[in-house]
Amino acid sequence: MVKSQTLVLDRTFAALSDPTRRALLARLDEEDSVSISELARPFPVSLPAIMKHLDVLEDAGLITREKTGRTVNCQLIAQPMQEAVAWLNRYERFWNKQLDRLTAFVERDQPPTKKARKK
Amino acid sequence: MVKSQTLVLDRTFAALSDPTRRALLARLDEEDSVSISELARPFPVSLPAIMKHLDVLEDAGLITREKTGRTVNCQLIAQPMQEAVAWLNRYERFWNKQLDRLTAFVERDQPPTKKARKK
Repeated sequence: MVKSQTLVLDRTFAALSDPTRRALLARLDEEDSVSISELARPFPVSLPAIMKHLDVLEDAGLITREKTGRTVNCQLIAQPMQEAVAWLNRYERFWNKQLDRLTAFVERDQPPTKKARKK
Repeated sequence: MVKSQTLVLDRTFAALSDPTRRALLARLDEEDSVSISELARPFPVSLPAIMKHLDVLEDAGLITREKTGRTVNCQLIAQPMQEAVAWLNRYERFWNKQLDRLTAFVERDQPPTKKARKK
């Protein structure tokens, strides 16, 4: 894996590790463009704290900020999340294997079904 | 979202934000159970540093450690990663929308194809 891809994953996962930042992304998923003051309103933290979270999200490439007059609007960029999913999906095979084992364990301990008894 | 689920996501994403920890998980994906000394061997960092990374992974529920005699073996648990993917997949619709916009933009600027001209 090239160094820049590694860095994208480092920053994306670090950005997503905070519940306020995940909530900010969820808000931006509802609407195309949201002003910073609107974004900050529902959170019980100060505006400078929200600005710091937005800095982390912007550094991770998860949002963009655009100034229109005196208003700064934020927009979601989903691309880094897509890369995070691609990385995680290599383990899909692994959790399916764990599920198969669990199914096999449960089936082994179950009394045979009517159909199975007929055989 | 209940508080415990939030905590699972916080810890999972934080654990995945480090390239050494991701590499440790990738190693555990290759083999069912790996001893700590084997796990640490390819990394150019000290054993105590690897132990700290394993603590973070264990706190996030991504690995288990089992002592057999004098050897401690680690195993991968994929469940928290599955929850992380479930959280990220709600943005799938969003990145598909961004792709649709890009496709529409490219198609609009393309000269019509032979088939389209015949109409």
